[in-house]
Amino acid sequence: MAPQLQGYFNKVDEMAEGFIKRLSDAVAIPSVSADDAMRPQVVKMAQFLRGELEALGATVEERHPGAEPDRPHLQIPPILLARYGNDKSKRTILVYGHYDVQPALKEDGWATDPFVLSVDQKSGKMFGRGSTDDKGPVLGWLNAIEAHQKAGIEFPVNLLMCFEGMEEYGSEGLDDIIHDEAKKFFKDADAVCISDNYWLGAEKPCLTYGLRGVSYYQICVHGPGQDLHSGVYGGSVSEPMTDLVKLLGTLVDNKGKILVPGLNELVKPVDEEEKKLYEGISFEMKDLYDGIGSCSSIYQDKESTLMARWRFPSLSIHGIEGAFSAPGAKTVIPAKVIGKFSVRTVPNMEPHEVDKVVLTHLEYEWEKIRTNNTMEAKLLHAGKWWVSSPKHWNFAAASKAVESVFGCKPDMTREGGSIPVTLTFEQATGKNVLLLPMGSSTDAAHSINEKLDRRNYIEGIKLLGAYLHYVAEEPQVEQ
Amino acid sequence: MAPQLQGYFNKVDEMAEGFIKRLSDAVAIPSVSADDAMRPQVVKMAQFLRGELEALGATVEERHPGAEPDRPHLQIPPILLARYGNDKSKRTILVYGHYDVQPALKEDGWATDPFVLSVDQKSGKMFGRGSTDDKGPVLGWLNAIEAHQKAGIEFPVNLLMCFEGMEEYGSEGLDDIIHDEAKKFFKDADAVCISDNYWLGAEKPCLTYGLRGVSYYQICVHGPGQDLHSGVYGGSVSEPMTDLVKLLGTLVDNKGKILVPGLNELVKPVDEEEKKLYEGISFEMKDLYDGIGSCSSIYQDKESTLMARWRFPSLSIHGIEGAFSAPGAKTVIPAKVIGKFSVRTVPNMEPHEVDKVVLTHLEYEWEKIRTNNTMEAKLLHAGKWWVSSPKHWNFAAASKAVESVFGCKPDMTREGGSIPVTLTFEQATGKNVLLLPMGSSTDAAHSINEKLDRRNYIEGIKLLGAYLHYVAEEPQVEQ
Ligand SMILES: [Zn+2]
Ligand SMILES: [Zn+2]
Ligand SMILES: [Zn+2]
Ligand SMILES: [Zn+2]
Repeated sequence: MAPQLQGYFNKVDEMAEGFIKRLSDAVAIPSVSADDAMRPQVVKMAQFLRGELEALGATVEERHPGAEPDRPHLQIPPILLARYGNDKSKRTILVYGHYDVQPALKEDGWATDPFVLSVDQKSGKMFGRGSTDDKGPVLGWLNAIEAHQKAGIEFPVNLLMCFEGMEEYGSEGLDDIIHDEAKKFFKDADAVCISDNYWLGAEKPCLTYGLRGVSYYQICVHGPGQDLHSGVYGGSVSEPMTDLVKLLGTLVDNKGKILVPGLNELVKPVDEEEKKLYEGISFEMKDLYDGIGSCSSIYQDKESTLMARWRFPSLSIHGIEGAFSAPGAKTVIPAKVIGKFSVRTVPNMEPHEVDKVVLTHLEYEWEKIRTNNTMEAKLLHAGKWWVSSPKHWNFAAASKAVESVFGCKPDMTREGGSIPVTLTFEQATGKNVLLLPMGSSTDAAHSINEKLDRRNYIEGIKLLGAYLHYVAEEPQVEQ
Repeated sequence: MAPQLQGYFNKVDEMAEGFIKRLSDAVAIPSVSADDAMRPQVVKMAQFLRGELEALGATVEERHPGAEPDRPHLQIPPILLARYGNDKSKRTILVYGHYDVQPALKEDGWATDPFVLSVDQKSGKMFGRGSTDDKGPVLGWLNAIEAHQKAGIEFPVNLLMCFEGMEEYGSEGLDDIIHDEAKKFFKDADAVCISDNYWLGAEKPCLTYGLRGVSYYQICVHGPGQDLHSGVYGGSVSEPMTDLVKLLGTLVDNKGKILVPGLNELVKPVDEEEKKLYEGISFEMKDLYDGIGSCSSIYQDKESTLMARWRFPSLSIHGIEGAFSAPGAKTVIPAKVIGKFSVRTVPNMEPHEVDKVVLTHLEYEWEKIRTNNTMEAKLLHAGKWWVSSPKHWNFAAASKAVESVFGCKPDMTREGGSIPVTLTFEQATGKNVLLLPMGSSTDAAHSINEKLDRRNYIEGIKLLGAYLHYVAEEPQVEQ
């Protein structure tokens, strides 16, 4: 029998303003994990979340992984492990989210204060750092619990929750905890659901069964003992920036083709059946143009574009640390410059093989440059790609939940971005992992003016609750 | 008859602590001309200087060139025109300096607060932004006046002073004022002296008769409407950073050779006699290594090194605006990136010809890149090279002053850095211009931990005063 959800849906609508207030309170805490000075705010955000969970009747435990390896003066913020319900007759679903956010400064070009949730009543856009990534989805689970309580509807499953505060800085300490707790706190889990990604477009929901990995590198080129005046020394000294731009220029061509020898050979060949999958996806080039805010795409067709984002590796140069980066015209020769780039990885690229070809390539190209500067390249962090089975009951339940909330079947998608924890949960628990996004492709996660649409938030709360009802009833047919 | 200077020298020594206090007061005003928010501090610095000048009995006028062309919301800080003495029987010397400074943040890596003069008593190093560039030399003139007054020694010349607050941001508005005042405020000037450069090494003073020019460019590459997540969009969108590093990589090779076709052809050929000049200069490679804080020089010999710094053009890549520039690992595709580079120019490179070959080269290379992004390159500012006659009485007087203070003849040098106002004063007044440096090559102007040695400051005050005495007596033999 299909679950009766209308009472729950009505209650969510009724409580919408309160749920937006809760998101507003969360966005107001600038829990930027990358920034040393913001660490107390990340901890404050954990306390906020713990307080909300306990007020809803969940039991909460904290795990403290200790100091960060790279920043030993900083303690990793607590990993919150929460349980709501403990009924052996019900399925148990483990959900994951993160309560830290990307850095954000008003000066970066935000139209509003990034740490004040600014709701545009007309468009329904709710701007703020973390609104869509990932405070909205995290609070979605809490809101679903509260709406059940207020509506007097029995919660359909036992819910285990794992919320971390280091996702935007490499999820330090998390993997060990997940492996540790797999047979302890997480042992009852029948399936895993993660809401930390985005719809493919702005209109139609999707379920995600695959992710690219990422291997993030830095190249440090070092020469003079301190920054120099280019007038005084220009021409007489080997300049680190000259060397670095040369090296960065050997990585990828202007059509997105990776130039690192041996890297494309690690990619699993595409077969004909696989190609057809991409034809069926509801996606138009206009969705891409809307998402990127321009028409500067590499490909002009849907299939090539989606495969470039999901199925093939890519290489992006993110920036340079240590060079002149402000407005104006400073005549400096920077003494030490650090180029940052990353490779998005796909089956069957093993991270250590990627490291090997990338670092070998950099050493080889550096030898050709022959300057008096020194170069040191290293991996900053890596997360492996993941591909799941979209025919599992966990996905079937989510698909029905989408139909009940949005009146359409979701697209089955992969994603370009890595969520390394997905693979860790799969490996540690041995259970199926589903990615169930709340936000849309236009949300500008990690960029200025990040937002979550009111519709995505409120219907998303319905979706998370509906998913739990369907998952409670879905027959255990796995393929 | 050689001037009797001992009384003046003794008085300078006696007043040294007060002169250091005056420099400390000046450094404490963060007069950063590049930074919008610091504009009131630049104006405050002008007021401080005006107050000091008037207290010494100088008459001061202000010139207000109006709003900045590039930043019309900002008024250009006042150009101070001061006169000390008006005796028709004396020579009149016009001196120039600037009271603005380069940007500086403690976080850039300064060992001390850049806007607190930190005097290391043991080494005599006085750290602080503007200590050597150019607040120390500017105050040197004021200190020379005061020491004469306190010693009861008649001031040997009429002194005209021109102090601006926009030197580190292109000297906006100054050229027009200099041309306007050439036959007005500056009309009595018999020669010009500028103290805004550095000794070649750390031990021996020099007089400077040539400067390279600078043409500073930016390349703006623009694609997506906003910064993008590299996981979500990497591979599907033309990335501005990929294009920019390619373009920056076409400018200069790793041995400092400029790769812009036609640019080296604009340089005046070196003749044999000229080569010999460089052999006589008191300079060792160790001086270069000390100045740059490493051994990463392009050449291993003195002559090639000095010619690379003075006689040939150079091209430096300063940095990129708009890309990720902070520590850490942000997975962003920057939407709009602005590369900054400059060319140091020498005889006979005409600035407009340099622009032509540089911009043509960039357009040509951009065509080869063939992306969907847009590129716009432009000149940000230009200052022409300058070469003077080192046999003029103005230089002869300065040479004798060096001997009287330091006991050795100065090296006659050129410099790599541009001081565009030098050429403007020469052209507007038609008089000889001398560059008489106070600081040393190890001062790290424009870098972190900028400093002025106590010796250079105090002996420098003696030097400026002695120069005025010799200049008053030097026979008018010009070559
Ligand atoms: Zn996230
Ligand atoms: Zn994120
Ligand atoms: Zn200066
Ligand atoms: Zn300067």
